[in-house]
Amino acid sequence: MSSNDMDGFFTHSYIARCATLAMILEVSGTPKPGNIDRDHDYATTKYEDFLASAVGVYPILEKASGEGGIGQLILEACGESVRWQTGGNTHFGAYILLFPLIKAAKQGPVDQIRSNAINIVKETTVDDAVNFYRAFSMVDVRMKSTEDLDASDRELDVSASGSLEELGRRGVTMFDIMQISAKNDMVSREWVDGFRRSFKAADKIFSKRKTGTMNDATVLTYLELLSEEPDTFIAKKYNMEKAVYVQGLAIDVLERRMTLRELSDRLYLEKINPGSTADIIIAGLFIALLNGMRV
Amino acid sequence: MSSNDMDGFFTHSYIARCATLAMILEVSGTPKPGNIDRDHDYATTKYEDFLASAVGVYPILEKASGEGGIGQLILEACGESVRWQTGGNTHFGAYILLFPLIKAAKQGPVDQIRSNAINIVKETTVDDAVNFYRAFSMVDVRMKSTEDLDASDRELDVSASGSLEELGRRGVTMFDIMQISAKNDMVSREWVDGFRRSFKAADKIFSKRKTGTMNDATVLTYLELLSEEPDTFIAKKYNMEKAVYVQGLAIDVLERRMTLRELSDRLYLEKINPGSTADIIIAGLFIALLNGMRV
Repeated sequence: MSSNDMDGFFTHSYIARCATLAMILEVSGTPKPGNIDRDHDYATTKYEDFLASAVGVYPILEKASGEGGIGQLILEACGESVRWQTGGNTHFGAYILLFPLIKAAKQGPVDQIRSNAINIVKETTVDDAVNFYRAFSMVDVRMKSTEDLDASDRELDVSASGSLEELGRRGVTMFDIMQISAKNDMVSREWVDGFRRSFKAADKIFSKRKTGTMNDATVLTYLELLSEEPDTFIAKKYNMEKAVYVQGLAIDVLERRMTLRELSDRLYLEKINPGSTADIIIAGLFIALLNGMRV
Repeated sequence: MSSNDMDGFFTHSYIARCATLAMILEVSGTPKPGNIDRDHDYATTKYEDFLASAVGVYPILEKASGEGGIGQLILEACGESVRWQTGGNTHFGAYILLFPLIKAAKQGPVDQIRSNAINIVKETTVDDAVNFYRAFSMVDVRMKSTEDLDASDRELDVSASGSLEELGRRGVTMFDIMQISAKNDMVSREWVDGFRRSFKAADKIFSKRKTGTMNDATVLTYLELLSEEPDTFIAKKYNMEKAVYVQGLAIDVLERRMTLRELSDRLYLEKINPGSTADIIIAGLFIALLNGMRV
């Protein structure tokens, strides 16, 4: 059982195992203030739901490097995830990053995954957009979607009736949707921005793991990402002020004005979960594993 | 993506995902006194090593329901596991239980897994025995093997030179080895004893999960198994007195003379890990998942 096939590129299975393990390592990293981790559940979603989801979607991760449009794969993954757990949506944002990166990893070589991924997302189609919208509706992702859109694009609101037909009428691809959402959504921004923060996270995780534990590498990278940009999941669930407030607290921890524990306790108490930053950590862990990082 | 193939039986992938998830849920259950869990590492092996191993061996778990002798599969799994983590042997005992159960699950239906497994282990061959010995040597499993053997069987000691040839000369199958080891090893005993405790653990886990959390179901079942029989991993690492001492402490916790936390702290302090009981918990979780339990 090798990580490489006869052409010297990663096997489907190796790539999928790295993706599953990335999801498992992300949710295991503790304390990852505000988010579910091995020591923190929410009322309706728990640590084990994330573990079961990460294992349950494996066949779709494995298939993804060989076949399937990105929209279709996200739709299938959302459907499979909820067959394995009852916590609802666990990895929607992560799928948006993982599926292009999985396809990019199969194209190889490892130092061209980023440029491969940049091309792959640009090649998405209207079909991808339609399936992405279907997946979106299925998992009920928190999104004040209408507010993201200019007046002329209101018919594209995922919750608007007829929005699927409107995608076809206008010839809107999944990449187009991500461009529209990029302003207010840091996961979408990765598609437009060449997966900048995902690869930055990978570098941070990889280098921190050389001198520290796997858990420290995950948690410290999460904290640094949080301090660099306001988390858009918080901005959508509450507002941008709250996202900036959390960014400020992360800076306080890094500059030793507050402990990590204090930040953690405060965010759980206030029910603030920086979910998009966690998605980028998953992408970063995936890339780091493909680059040879070991737990 | 369904759990069933066209014949109505579990798919290879579904079975393998249940097996991977069983290993992940077992090591996540906390506090599982003395063993590695989400809150307890050892000096040289950590929680993340178990997670990475459980994901890394997935392709061998998937293959197992279609092809491969049990000895060969254990050998391959041991080899693959250490490509994903640096903590050494993580799941050797679990493989001995999982591979026959995986094959039994594929034969279906679900209420005949036990009788299928009983037949499967009896059909193991000398080749299985040889590969099992090879795997054994690879992972350096703690075992005072010579003491398990009668004087006439000393040439079969896995550490004796020429033991592989001796297996062939005498026509010793893997089932024969398990019969020899059963007296002092509760994992081997499962092969001889119709997987009695694995299925008992599955029933306990399944019914406890109906009224409590996944974690409680895992931890309480572990505690009950520990109270019922002395753990043979402890007996081999130390001696039977110490294994009986731990059994007594587990009874103390169940009868409220000691808290679970106190038992946990004591076993970690004294470096006593009931590893064989954990292996049976993995088998129990696997069977419970196949029976439809959800996290």
